[in-house]
Amino acid sequence: MKESGKTYRIELEPVGRRTEIKAGSSLLEAAQNAGVDLLSICGGVGTCYGCRVRLASGKLSAPTLEEETGLEGEDLALGYRLACQAIPLGDVKIDIPPESLTTPQRLQVEGQAIEIDLDPPVMAVDINIPPPAIDDLRSDITRLKTVFHDRGLSEPTIKFPLLTTFSESLRAMSWKARLAVRENEIINLLPVDKDSLPSHLYGLAVDIGTTKLAAYLVDLTTGETVAKTGAMNPQIGYGEDVVSRILYCNEHADGRKVLQARVVDSINQMAKGLCDEIKITPQHIVEAVVVGNTAMHHLFAGFPVHQLGTSPYVPSVSDPFELRAHDIGLNLAPGAYVYLPPNIAGYVGADHVAMILATGIGSTDRTALALDIGTNTEIGLAYKGRILCCSCASGPAFEGAHIQDGMRAAPGAIERVQIIDGGIRTHTIGNRPPVGICGSGILDAVSELIANGAIDSRGNLLSQHPLVRTNNGKRDVQLTPAEKTGHGREIVVNRQDINEIQLAKGAIRTGIEILLEDAGIKPEDLEQFIIAGAFGTYLDLNSAIRVGMFPSLPMGRYQQVGNAAGTGARQMLMSNRLRRKAVEISQRVEYVELTTHPSFNDQFMKAIMF
Amino acid sequence: MKESGKTYRIELEPVGRRTEIKAGSSLLEAAQNAGVDLLSICGGVGTCYGCRVRLASGKLSAPTLEEETGLEGEDLALGYRLACQAIPLGDVKIDIPPESLTTPQRLQVEGQAIEIDLDPPVMAVDINIPPPAIDDLRSDITRLKTVFHDRGLSEPTIKFPLLTTFSESLRAMSWKARLAVRENEIINLLPVDKDSLPSHLYGLAVDIGTTKLAAYLVDLTTGETVAKTGAMNPQIGYGEDVVSRILYCNEHADGRKVLQARVVDSINQMAKGLCDEIKITPQHIVEAVVVGNTAMHHLFAGFPVHQLGTSPYVPSVSDPFELRAHDIGLNLAPGAYVYLPPNIAGYVGADHVAMILATGIGSTDRTALALDIGTNTEIGLAYKGRILCCSCASGPAFEGAHIQDGMRAAPGAIERVQIIDGGIRTHTIGNRPPVGICGSGILDAVSELIANGAIDSRGNLLSQHPLVRTNNGKRDVQLTPAEKTGHGREIVVNRQDINEIQLAKGAIRTGIEILLEDAGIKPEDLEQFIIAGAFGTYLDLNSAIRVGMFPSLPMGRYQQVGNAAGTGARQMLMSNRLRRKAVEISQRVEYVELTTHPSFNDQFMKAIMF
Repeated sequence: MKESGKTYRIELEPVGRRTEIKAGSSLLEAAQNAGVDLLSICGGVGTCYGCRVRLASGKLSAPTLEEETGLEGEDLALGYRLACQAIPLGDVKIDIPPESLTTPQRLQVEGQAIEIDLDPPVMAVDINIPPPAIDDLRSDITRLKTVFHDRGLSEPTIKFPLLTTFSESLRAMSWKARLAVRENEIINLLPVDKDSLPSHLYGLAVDIGTTKLAAYLVDLTTGETVAKTGAMNPQIGYGEDVVSRILYCNEHADGRKVLQARVVDSINQMAKGLCDEIKITPQHIVEAVVVGNTAMHHLFAGFPVHQLGTSPYVPSVSDPFELRAHDIGLNLAPGAYVYLPPNIAGYVGADHVAMILATGIGSTDRTALALDIGTNTEIGLAYKGRILCCSCASGPAFEGAHIQDGMRAAPGAIERVQIIDGGIRTHTIGNRPPVGICGSGILDAVSELIANGAIDSRGNLLSQHPLVRTNNGKRDVQLTPAEKTGHGREIVVNRQDINEIQLAKGAIRTGIEILLEDAGIKPEDLEQFIIAGAFGTYLDLNSAIRVGMFPSLPMGRYQQVGNAAGTGARQMLMSNRLRRKAVEISQRVEYVELTTHPSFNDQFMKAIMF
Repeated sequence: MKESGKTYRIELEPVGRRTEIKAGSSLLEAAQNAGVDLLSICGGVGTCYGCRVRLASGKLSAPTLEEETGLEGEDLALGYRLACQAIPLGDVKIDIPPESLTTPQRLQVEGQAIEIDLDPPVMAVDINIPPPAIDDLRSDITRLKTVFHDRGLSEPTIKFPLLTTFSESLRAMSWKARLAVRENEIINLLPVDKDSLPSHLYGLAVDIGTTKLAAYLVDLTTGETVAKTGAMNPQIGYGEDVVSRILYCNEHADGRKVLQARVVDSINQMAKGLCDEIKITPQHIVEAVVVGNTAMHHLFAGFPVHQLGTSPYVPSVSDPFELRAHDIGLNLAPGAYVYLPPNIAGYVGADHVAMILATGIGSTDRTALALDIGTNTEIGLAYKGRILCCSCASGPAFEGAHIQDGMRAAPGAIERVQIIDGGIRTHTIGNRPPVGICGSGILDAVSELIANGAIDSRGNLLSQHPLVRTNNGKRDVQLTPAEKTGHGREIVVNRQDINEIQLAKGAIRTGIEILLEDAGIKPEDLEQFIIAGAFGTYLDLNSAIRVGMFPSLPMGRYQQVGNAAGTGARQMLMSNRLRRKAVEISQRVEYVELTTHPSFNDQFMKAIMF
């Protein structure tokens, strides 16, 4: 029985869509309403179990018999439901696992190709140990040490948990194995196959973004990136941005454990998927490098984050740190380490160090600026041997959040907007009927409306412009009429959306200007302007310049390099020398705190204007 | 409804009692029958929950309502039952937790007093860290490192899991703390109390015997042993001796995990109890040393044991090993390490190294022999700078097993037997009515019967002797008539019991003789004869010499030193120098394999005679 009249607000994460439904409608209807395609092979009768979602907050109807039957083990207890069966009893927030979506969200995993001298932390040592005998009663490890000694190698160490399986594995491999050795520690032993071809050793590089994860499988023997993949950061269900996740941890005793477990779980799934692609197992992954902003770094490693959310916002740990994968439940080789590069400050993390490393601005003589746009935008400026850096609170607008019809870069999102002959043309991801607008789309829309005189320098929509409509005193611009969208509701840009873009681009431009000011140079002195990250890859440069987010330079000086943090992580996976380089960068970087900078207010007031 | 006629065999562990009961009787009746006093305040009606026991094998009646109510959480699933409610449905084996016994079993924790120069691996460093400020945004760890640097100390490291709480703890302690530092690693931080008296640092020494555990709490600041305790090894429920526990692991995929968890759990309980005694918490225990035979060592650390049960019986690991307490679930300070001293061979473990260290035979110029009697008896012989050692399969007879009326050294066990004027006098532990005979009692009995001419040199009971009875062609000697025992059944010694003692003492004497032979000396050359361990403390020396277990020497040369392995563990807890000494001992020891020794058969045939 549907109650008429009442409506509930439904938030769908991690895709970042919001919708309203009538009381009595199911979550599946809510998803369809929002243009989010959940798997629903059975047509919504609760028998295919494809539309499994997790309740993040709010109240749903009691589980049906179909749900009791279809949801395995602890799923129900963990809040999982079938979207076709569960009826919201109020406003709810839902977390959609990737396997329940028909088409995945676009994730940025591309990056620059890497050419470096291989100098990996883990090397292969092939051994043949004599078995014990009645006249050789030495322990397995003692006999192994003799083999190393006889070959002029340093004495090896083996730690927990590898030691718990080592003797059995050696016997199963008939005393012949390839050892993965890190400094003197044995990380794993792998079989030598029938053709006497020992397994290659692999490394995993991971970039933990606040919103997205990227993972790369690297062959440490050849340096080749053999597989890559992306996923949403599952922590989104617990808070969209860094601050709300810190808050979640402050408010829940087991908050840090939960957030750590969720991201480790996702990385385990990605690692397994990458290994499946090339028919190896995560046992072959003998080393990992993980980068992320300071909060993501701390949450991954299990470090406290409370102090990151309280003035003066200091990290618990900023030096590089080596964690044993086993300690945090990451399923790699038993002895595998995870190398976490250094952080710079509470809001400038290891991902920024990785970006500086990958873009090379730390080693160049050129005056170069590199930035990675996200909810927080980190900017690095290299000038005459100095590296200045800052973090701008650019907000989630470019992720599609806080925008009326905003959404993340998923199929059906408007990613390009042009005004040609006074008419609006849009292009969506996957060429699907539009259901919302993502960051590059809203940036384009604002830019085109400025260029066509529909927006003034303060961000007001001008009522006399033919594209601008006025309803009940509120002005907006229709991008797509209801009949052409995927969900039957029009898609518009309004004054509030423009304001969000103003704040976001203003924050970024302010960071750029203050770094330039502190270095004592002008925008035109920049010989290189490097834009990293997913949004940075897909944004239209002309739009970004036209709205004033970036200074105007000759086009040849801009470079869109993709996931530079991921590239830096891969570099550090393959080279001890580059790890040392990254530490050197982190020590050399001069962190500029924007909020207390004397020029901040002036620059910001200037930067938010169009 | 009791079925008449049928009887079931009930084994009660870890006290080591066996009994038969009529079908339909409860486990509580079985325990009473066997003279084992279970707590039963309610009189066996299932309301006091005192008689909680665990089913180790066999089948019991379904749990009653009282049990469903009285057994907490997972207890029922883990096999715990109330003895007054559970009715055996066949032969069963029961594991009795110490808290369900009215009087505890006698456990050997005494050892020699220790006087050594303190040189502990963990030292205290008191610090006062400047808090972060708007003009000092360095991470917590970076500021900590500066404090160390400014005081001329090496750069500290902090590892998982301490790092996961470090920043919060520092804030809670207002930046003032006592750090426990091991080499350069921070093991824990402890508050400085109101009177500015920082906490002492403590260490835990544990001796894991196949049957018993002993634990010592040592103040690392003063060297004092502030508390000690003993417990049964809970692994007994899974196999009485080393071989049967290895078999259990071979036959159960999770066997090693189960046995490890049980012993770690017991050590956690002992550590908690020791800390409670002096009003500290296990967080103050910053280091542990654990000794045991090679199998106990491997099972504790989680190393494979399969190869210990298969010829040529080699250890997985023999070098000293440092394990993080956290890795195996031992609840000490977050960063605490467990130091495992070296093993010598598959059947000569770190406990033997600890015994050699504690008895000082490795450092003396005197010709000295030291032995620790158990299911396996390890013997060390020092002669002119050499240390020879061996392990004898002496069997469990001295633990009261395989003896018709045998039991462990618990209240009611006959521990002394004398024949005075042709009459038998016995003395029991705790002066209780006798319910069985323990190792020292059976040794005395055999010795007295030899001295009184009731047993010949081959071990036969002589039918013409007035103390010897003949029933159905079987001969025995009654120690206590039924009316004087605690359970109403007579206690006897029979031919089979004497045979068990012959085998046990023969094995030990063979080991002694072969070591002497290999060293090229005679028994009378021994200037010191040191007997360690629980049974070694309580045995009557004259009895041991009279049955031929020990060679006959002037009495002044014998020394009964108590738990020398525990003493050695405490020494290694307090001194890095003594750890190095132990390693040196382990490398110098010459292991003599008895079973393949050319003299073994001849020596053994001689040694089993009285």
